[in-house]
Formats: sequence, C-alpha cells, structure tokens
Amino acid sequence: MVNETQHTCSASSSSKSDGGSSSGSESSKDSSRCSTPVLDADRHERLREKMRRRQDAGDKWFSLEFFPPRTANAAVNLISRFDRMGAGGPLFIDVTWHPAGDPGSDKETSSMIIANTAVNYCGLETILHMTCCNQTRDDITGHLQKAKRLGLKNIMALRGDPVGEEWEEEVDGFNYAVDLVKHIRNEFDDYFDICVAGYPKGHPEAESYEADLRHLKEKVFAGADFIITQLFFRSETFLKFMKDCQAIGITCPIIPGIFPIQGYHSLRQLVKLSKLEVPQEIKDVIEPIKDNDAAIRNYGVELAVSMCRELLDSGMVHGLHFYTLNREVATTEVLKRLGIWKEDPRRPLPWAVSAHPKRRVEDVRPIFWASRPKSYIYRTQEWDDFPNGRWGNSSSPAFGELKDYYLFYLKSKSPREELLKMWGEELTGEESVFEVFTCYITGEPNKNGHKVTCMPWNDDPLATETNLLKEQLEKVNRRGILTINSQPNINGKPSTDPIVGWGPSGGYVFQKAYLEFFTSSEIVTALLKVLKKYELRVNYHIVNVKGQNITNAPDLQPNAVTWGIFPGREIIQPTVVDPVSFLSWKDEAFALWIEQWAKLYEEESPSRMIIQYIHDNYYLVNLVDNDFPLENCLWQVVEDTFELLNSQTQQ
Amino acid sequence: MVNETQHTCSASSSSKSDGGSSSGSESSKDSSRCSTPVLDADRHERLREKMRRRQDAGDKWFSLEFFPPRTANAAVNLISRFDRMGAGGPLFIDVTWHPAGDPGSDKETSSMIIANTAVNYCGLETILHMTCCNQTRDDITGHLQKAKRLGLKNIMALRGDPVGEEWEEEVDGFNYAVDLVKHIRNEFDDYFDICVAGYPKGHPEAESYEADLRHLKEKVFAGADFIITQLFFRSETFLKFMKDCQAIGITCPIIPGIFPIQGYHSLRQLVKLSKLEVPQEIKDVIEPIKDNDAAIRNYGVELAVSMCRELLDSGMVHGLHFYTLNREVATTEVLKRLGIWKEDPRRPLPWAVSAHPKRRVEDVRPIFWASRPKSYIYRTQEWDDFPNGRWGNSSSPAFGELKDYYLFYLKSKSPREELLKMWGEELTGEESVFEVFTCYITGEPNKNGHKVTCMPWNDDPLATETNLLKEQLEKVNRRGILTINSQPNINGKPSTDPIVGWGPSGGYVFQKAYLEFFTSSEIVTALLKVLKKYELRVNYHIVNVKGQNITNAPDLQPNAVTWGIFPGREIIQPTVVDPVSFLSWKDEAFALWIEQWAKLYEEESPSRMIIQYIHDNYYLVNLVDNDFPLENCLWQVVEDTFELLNSQTQQ
Repeated sequence: MVNETQHTCSASSSSKSDGGSSSGSESSKDSSRCSTPVLDADRHERLREKMRRRQDAGDKWFSLEFFPPRTANAAVNLISRFDRMGAGGPLFIDVTWHPAGDPGSDKETSSMIIANTAVNYCGLETILHMTCCNQTRDDITGHLQKAKRLGLKNIMALRGDPVGEEWEEEVDGFNYAVDLVKHIRNEFDDYFDICVAGYPKGHPEAESYEADLRHLKEKVFAGADFIITQLFFRSETFLKFMKDCQAIGITCPIIPGIFPIQGYHSLRQLVKLSKLEVPQEIKDVIEPIKDNDAAIRNYGVELAVSMCRELLDSGMVHGLHFYTLNREVATTEVLKRLGIWKEDPRRPLPWAVSAHPKRRVEDVRPIFWASRPKSYIYRTQEWDDFPNGRWGNSSSPAFGELKDYYLFYLKSKSPREELLKMWGEELTGEESVFEVFTCYITGEPNKNGHKVTCMPWNDDPLATETNLLKEQLEKVNRRGILTINSQPNINGKPSTDPIVGWGPSGGYVFQKAYLEFFTSSEIVTALLKVLKKYELRVNYHIVNVKGQNITNAPDLQPNAVTWGIFPGREIIQPTVVDPVSFLSWKDEAFALWIEQWAKLYEEESPSRMIIQYIHDNYYLVNLVDNDFPLENCLWQVVEDTFELLNSQTQQ
Repeated sequence: MVNETQHTCSASSSSKSDGGSSSGSESSKDSSRCSTPVLDADRHERLREKMRRRQDAGDKWFSLEFFPPRTANAAVNLISRFDRMGAGGPLFIDVTWHPAGDPGSDKETSSMIIANTAVNYCGLETILHMTCCNQTRDDITGHLQKAKRLGLKNIMALRGDPVGEEWEEEVDGFNYAVDLVKHIRNEFDDYFDICVAGYPKGHPEAESYEADLRHLKEKVFAGADFIITQLFFRSETFLKFMKDCQAIGITCPIIPGIFPIQGYHSLRQLVKLSKLEVPQEIKDVIEPIKDNDAAIRNYGVELAVSMCRELLDSGMVHGLHFYTLNREVATTEVLKRLGIWKEDPRRPLPWAVSAHPKRRVEDVRPIFWASRPKSYIYRTQEWDDFPNGRWGNSSSPAFGELKDYYLFYLKSKSPREELLKMWGEELTGEESVFEVFTCYITGEPNKNGHKVTCMPWNDDPLATETNLLKEQLEKVNRRGILTINSQPNINGKPSTDPIVGWGPSGGYVFQKAYLEFFTSSEIVTALLKVLKKYELRVNYHIVNVKGQNITNAPDLQPNAVTWGIFPGREIIQPTVVDPVSFLSWKDEAFALWIEQWAKLYEEESPSRMIIQYIHDNYYLVNLVDNDFPLENCLWQVVEDTFELLNSQTQQ
C-alpha cells in the first residue's frame, strides 16, 4: 500500500498471462489411500483460519509488505531477504502490484513472479496485491487465473491510482476496490482469501471520514476477509478507527499497518504521495538530524516499538503489518524488541517446504537437490502428484527440462567478477579446481586472498550440519574428491536438536551417512575395487556425463537416508537416494560445470578447457553407509581408495 | 497323485462355485505412485520362475503333497501342519482333488477350501490338483474361475480315474489330462502355472512305456510348465525316465515324487491302487517287521534318504516332491537328514504374509490382530487394495462382518471339554478369570492341574518375544489387567535377531512398547489420572463394548510401532496402532468373550454371568510408549495405577 502510493499509475498492462502452467490446486488428491501424516497444521489452513487460530490462542503475530524490485539482480537479493525474514516467522508477506512494471507478466521482476517465488520457493504464505482501475474485466480475470495457477491463495483488492488528474467513473468498469472484491467472489467463489485496505484517517479522496467507513463496510460485505490499514503515526488514530469500524458492524480482523521511519527522504516522499500529515512532535525530532540516517532509523525504531506496544497492550490488536520498504534492519529490530520475531530453529521437515497448495502433502524428496531446493521445486512444478509418504520405484513423473532460467535466475547471486575472484581468474590444472572446493569447505581465503562463499551446486551457504564433517571434507577435496553434498549419520537424536532436528517435538531423527562428489576415472577405478569390501554396507551410484551408470542398488529402489519417529504417528522419511531421479540430477550437476563455471572464461582458453575436461571425464558418485548406528565408514572407503592408488604408483 | 489313486472316481460334482468373492487379482494396482519396496522377491514371481531361479542358483528345494481331510476337526489339524511344515521352507505344497469329497465346494474339507487356506492364511505357494474326466466343460471352467478368484495360481492337470471298469472316450469331452491343459490355456491364457503327471514306469493303462512318454510330451507341448512324477522305488528308474524324456524333446523341469514308506498297510494299499510293484529287496526287509510301525518308518526314512541322495548327486535333480500322506514325522526327518529342511527364523515381515496375489504388496497391518492373523486375513479378503507402505487415516475400507465362520472355524482347536478344563468348569468371580489369564502367561497349571495353552484372543501359542515380558505380564494379570497383546520396545536390533528380527539381512529393526488389555472401569479411572503424567510419552485408546472411546491420539493418525531400516531401501513400517481399525477389532475382541468363553456355560449359570459382566463392563485399553530408546514405561504406568488405587482404598 505504501508502494501503491509511490508510483503513478500507467495504463493497464496488456500482458496476457500465459506463463506458469500447473493445473489447479483442486487436483491434489486428498482421498489417496496412502495419506500423509499431518506434520504441520499450517499447511492445511487458509490464511483467515490461521489468523483466527492465532488470535484464539492469544498469540501475537506480524506480517511483512514488499514491493517488486526493478532489476533481476535486485530480485535475487529480495528473494534472499524473503528467506532471511521468513525465518522470523511472519504469518504472511504481501507483494504490491506495480502497474508500471507489467505486474502480471512472467518477467523476473513482476509482482506476479515475485509473489510466485515467495509462495513456491520460499514457502511463505503470500498475498498478492491487485489493482483494478483502468483495466478490463478480461485482464483482471486473467491475472487472477494465473495467480491461482501459480499457487497464490490470497489477494489484496485495491482500486489503484487512476491515470491523470481528472478521473471519471467508467460505466460497468472497475471503479472501486469493491468492484474487484465482487468480481473475485463472482468468478472464483471462495477460492481466494481477500484483503482490503482501510484508512484510519479516511481515504484522502473520500467525501468524509464517515463516508469512507461506509465504503470500507461495503468492501467487507462484498466478501473481504480482513482489512489492512494505511500507515498512521499515533496508536490512538488506529484504535479510534477500529472502534468506529466495529460501531458500524465491521467485525472482520483489522490489522494496523506499521511504518518504521527509516530515513528522511523516504518519509518525505511517502507523506507527499499518501497525503498524510506527519505530527509536529515527530517533525521536531527529525528535522535536526535529517542528515544522520542511523539516528533517524534509531528514532524510527523507537517510535514504532512504543506505538506497537500501545496497540498490543490495548488488547484489540493481535497482528501487526509492517511496511518494510524492502529493507530488513529496522523492521527486524522492531520485531525483536517487541519479542514477536520467532526464530525457531525447528523445521517441519529437513528441507524447506513450499507453500503451493498442490505441494502441501509433499513429504519426500531426493537428497540430490538438498543444496538447490529451488531448482527441485522448479523442475517438479508441473507434477500433479508428489510421492506421498514414500518415493516408489516408478513414482517420479518426468522432471522439468534443464533451462537457463533455473540454472541462473535463482542462484547466481554474485556477478561474474566476484565469481572469477572466488573460482579463479585463471586455472592452471585440475588442482586449481580442487583448491576452490577446498576453500569453500574450510572458509579460508584462496591464494589470491578471496573467500569462496558459493559454488555452482549450492543455492545457500554451507549447511550447519556440514560443519560436523568439515575436517574430513577438507582432506578429501584437497585430493580430488570434489564433494558437492553430504550428511553425517545420526542414530536417534531428539527431534528438537538445534542442528539436525526437525518435525514435532518428542520424536527422534535418524540419518544414514551420505557423500556425493565428482572425481576422476582413475579414482573411480580404485574406488570400485575398494567398494567390493563394503558390498553389503555401502550403496553406490557412479555415473558420468554420458550416462554410464555403475550401481549396486537393488532393483532401482530408493534408499531412505533421513527419517523420523514421532509420538502417535507413522514414520516420516523425507529424504531418499532415488536412483531414477539421480539421472535427472546428473544432467543438472554436470551442466552446472559448463553453464556456471566454464562460461566465465573465454572460449578456447586453458581455464575453460580444464573445466570442460572435468565435465567430460569425471564421474559423479554417491555413497550411502547403511549402517547408521556404527561409525560412518565412508571416510574409510575414501582413505582405502587413496591407499590403493598410492600402492599402485609405488609399484 | 498318490491320493488320486486312493479314491475311485464318483460322478462329477455339480456344485457350482459361488463362494468367495474377491474381485480378481488384476485389480491390484502395480502402478500406484506409492510403490512398496520389494522385501521378498518370491512374492512377485510365478512358481515356474521361482523354480528356475532356485535351479540357476544351484539351490536344492522340496515340495509337499497333502490330500483334503475328511472332517472339520481334521481340517483344523491339517492347517496347523501347514504352518509347521511351511516353516521348513517348501517351494510349494499341493492339495489333491478329491472327486468324492465335493472338491470345488465351500465345505471346510473341500480341496478348493483347503488350498485356499494354504495360500491365503498360511502364505504357502500352492498347487491345486484338478481332474477332468466325467466332468462338463462348464464345471471345470467354474472350478478354475473360483480357484483364480481365491488367489490360486497353479493347477496340477490330471485325468482322474474314470467311473466303472469299461471306460469309453467321450466325443468332445475331457478324456485325457492333455484336454484339461489345453482348456486351461484356451480359457485362462497364461494365468495359471500348469503341472502334469509323469509316470517313470509308464502309466499302468498305457499301451507301452514309449506311448506314455509321447502322451507326456503332448501335455507339455499343450502348455504344461513342469512335471511331477508318480512315486518309484529306485533312483535309476527316475533317472532313466528323465533321460528318455529329454531324448524326445521334453525340456521342462521334471520333479521326482518321493514316497517315504511310513507303514505296512499304507504301502500295500498304495501298491494295489497304483499298480506299482515293490522291489523284492524292499519286501524282504518289510515283511519280517510288518507289525512294528516305528521300525518300518525308520527303514522308510533310511530308504528315502539314500534314494534322494542318489538323485541329488546325479546333478539332474534340483527339487524333490514328497507324498506326505498328510503325515509330518517321516517327511520332516528325511528333509532334515538331507539338509534341505530350512527352518529359517527370519521372516520377511513381522507377521505371516499371505500368498494371495492381491496381497503381495500388503506390507502394513494393525497390531491388534497380531495373535489372530487368520481372522485379519478373513476380514480383509474383500479389499481390492491394501494400505501400501503406510496406513493412512482413511485408508481402511470396511472390515468384513463378524461371523461365526472366523470366530470358530479357524481357531478353536480344542473341544469344549478341553476348554472348560483350561478356562474353568465353574467360575467363582472375576478373580477366576484373572487366574486363567495368569496361567496362560506363566505356563503353570491352573488349580485343577490343567495348563492353559490357548485363549480366545490367540490363534497361536504365546509368541517367543512375549517371553521377554513374561514376569511383568504375570504380575499385572494377577491384578486384573487382562493382557491380550503386547510387544517390548526394541531400539535397533539386527534384522537377523532370532527373536525379534525380520526382513532382509543387514538391517535394523525397531519397536515401540505396546500393551493391550481388558480391565475394569475402576482401574481405567485410576489409569486415566496416571496417564496425565505421561501425556507426551504414552498414546492410549480406551474403549468399552458400547464404543465409548477415550484417546489422546492426534487426529486419528496411525502410530507406527514396528519398523525396519534396511540397506538400499525405503523404511518399512509393517505394524501400526491404527485408531480407525481399532474399533473393528474392539467388536471382535469383545465378541470373543461371549462366543468362545461365556457360551461354554449354561445360560443363566453364574459362570456365564461372570463373563457376561466382564463383557458388558470392562474396557479394552491399548497403550504405546513412544520413547522407544528409553526403558519401557508402560509397566510403571500400571504400577502407578495400582499405587493410586491402593492409596485411595487406604483413605
């Protein structure tokens, strides 16, 4: 809403939605015989029900508003911010509708795609804003259909700013937000939860405060589920507004919009656009410090905290909505000081759950994408069903094609120059590559003094539990076992364990040790000899880019490598080593060498040829130690392999 | 086949099959997304493939022939024998067709129903014999359809003995076994594996040995998969026959029929009917000892062992077929001395797997029927699907009705007088009932000197693993916690553990402690107070005969109480405490008080009224201790309950 006032409205975008293509959430089969245990009640509820449940439980909650970024790079940063701020436990986030930015299109920066990313890839309950003025009925229906297809379930229905100074009502057009609310309810029944805007001081264009309240009531009676208010500067303003609403029969939740002042200029611009008046006592503080950003932000935080406390203490307010302006520090600080930032290290499953309604029963994934979860979600977005409870032999429909889109858009957070510094301006041989892998594991700077903070195979920084294996990983990477994924064995740790725990409390979690790496054919030959000794204990899959595949896995069955036992439930086995999907992962894993690393260098350059050589000749290996109660034997397997190689060279 | 010669052939039975009613094995959904891990390759293979696989692996195997019993009591005993001899690992058993005994009917003693029991309830690969002479095409098709419906997959196609001395071929009738083979292949395509009979000395009615070989070749070329031979007395007889068969192009497996001589009279009768001649050297030994059964049997065992050794040593024989005459000792002895009786304590799953093709993917059952597996199979025989891999909330279709059939036929192995001796000629109060339960657990005789070897809730003797709990069980039964089912907690024992192990080797098995019992409402009241202390740790279901149901289980979800982790596989969770099916079990468990115990006594007798009182007023309770890695707390729960009761009486 703040954002809505920041931009003047252009003519309605004519982009017809044609991207995305999942086939509607109704297709998820609730009646499946193999039902999934409900790990997380949240995943089954509508937003309005979650809101009510939190209120009934006496819980305080918060939500966060973002606007779509202007550039692809900014989009990548915003998505990282979603992940970080999502960790604080917002009830939802919302993404504003930016009419000038082709908001319903498939562009990386469109409102639609940003909201899509939040819900599907970041697993956040998300509200998509939508404005209706100067748009055709078909455009609007198209946007709504697309939103539904992408898994969005909540719409903030707004009028939007009309074009030009002299605005006239269109006959049968969408003139007010209430028209949009009615349209959504007519065309989509009760599918969407609908939010509308409330103006604690009345809309600037309304005839009067009272008339504006009546308009609000119309919107609610037309089918809106709750109200978020425009920002305000004094808690009394909101509390009076809320009482006035109740007095005329508005009973749905009303959520105050909180704007922590973050800078002099953003405040001035906002005030200009929203036609709100800043109280004199605030001006008096700000004017003298207007050039000191930090001071203004500190003051803004102070002010927001004390206003929020007053609101919460009134007993009338259960949730707070924050206008973040896409910034992180001020809002996070306010939330932490209020004690409602809930960084809960417990996860419902060991991997990040997507919030798409089709995926709400998803509870098993192959381990291969553990460090590239967004790629997995992207490549399985067309699936109508997900393996439910377990991952059968023939259970995976085709994985989506490898496309530049997910190879790049959702990962490369660093520009080319940064990557070259990390991965080497010039490679002198395979050993230079070993060095890069080793530095990534150790966190030590490379020989040019740069830390290696990301790798082509990792969306995210090294997982905390990988630290348990750090010393061993360093040793093997140095010698050409180029690890891209691993987990230690776990024999029944409490489900509340801060590092490896997941799922409801009172349970026990388990893991089989896993190690995945690229390595040379010479090492593979020795490894295979060594693996004979471990035949009954270690399962392996070894494959090269051409698809030559060596395995001892029985009948292509999946091997469960992470599972949990919980009170009163069936066993959950959320991570598997699945031989069938491994071949889809293999294509992706090998492609990343070229697409993300080799292409940093000139064609025909020695550096590029080194990476190309590795791509063409190395094998991708995964190993599982099935004896999870014993000490992980995979390091011994690698040790034995190097010993065998040494003894051969000495002969 | 031995049996076939023992009975003269009556007119063909006109019984049209109308029993059974499962809906064809093709309906089992192999394409289910939630595929089951293949625990036991045997369950997926056809008999002919199993035979080939064993032969390729250089394994020696055996099979066992039985004939249908004449009385219901004998049927109950034969089924126990199936279970005991099944433990030795026969590749299959076969049940002869007894034309005089209404063989295709639904009588407990019919060939069809005995074979049905063997395959469905005892989990044995089974061949049903079928004769064709003097039967209409419709009769035969009807029998075959019924056999298919019941889950039988193998037919031994025989001519049968014609009625009367002067037999004439019927035009277009079934005159020879080859007609039946052709009919099966015409009408049922490749559905059945077909076995035919071979006569090492030629059929007694054949023109010549050579002519008989040609007939055999016709049967094989018409579609038979393998041959079982008539008995013979010298290994040379069989080996010559086999070479002669091969010489004329018979390449399918030929299995020698072994008849261990078990007594003078059975031998004489057999010889008369089969028109075989007993070699003089055998007669010379037997005649002098003809009144000493034990001596004859010892000789018969000796003879069979040495003949079987010669056969196996020839390298031409991989499997041996035994004519058991429904007896156990001689055949078992021969098999043990040959070293091919494989009493393997390892089970593919913790419960006995049914061999019905529809059930081959069944891998989870509620724990409640652990001591009444045949009742569970009976009550779920109409299911088209089984919960596959896990037991979802709504996954169980209706359980079959409680009927006298399974309440009685498949259990009460003891006559009324026996039961009265065990369970009390006259009960004097609830304490007399406590005493019965206690004696069953301890194995001590009751006060009248009789051991209690069975209870209404147990098909089988006390499970070995229950011994782990014996001392505790005795203590609580004495005080009115009448236990009917229990298992100890297990925290990762090897899957090869002789007592609690199951599944492939190299795995680990786990259990949550479970306790199920009847008890008075007074004890339940105290128990519920105590359970508050254990709220997060213990799940309970408490129900009375009227269905009043008290539970702390979340959302009616099943609780996995037995599971196994195996190399290269998904996790198997074969036993659950399922709240929905518990209510079906409850009806059965309460009914057993009346049907099996109360009805032993006169109406209105005090004994009967005591049981009736318990039936009407007691509760059925189940408890699960979710903390499987810790010491089982359920005994402490019961201890606390008694303490609470004591403290209340003292006040």
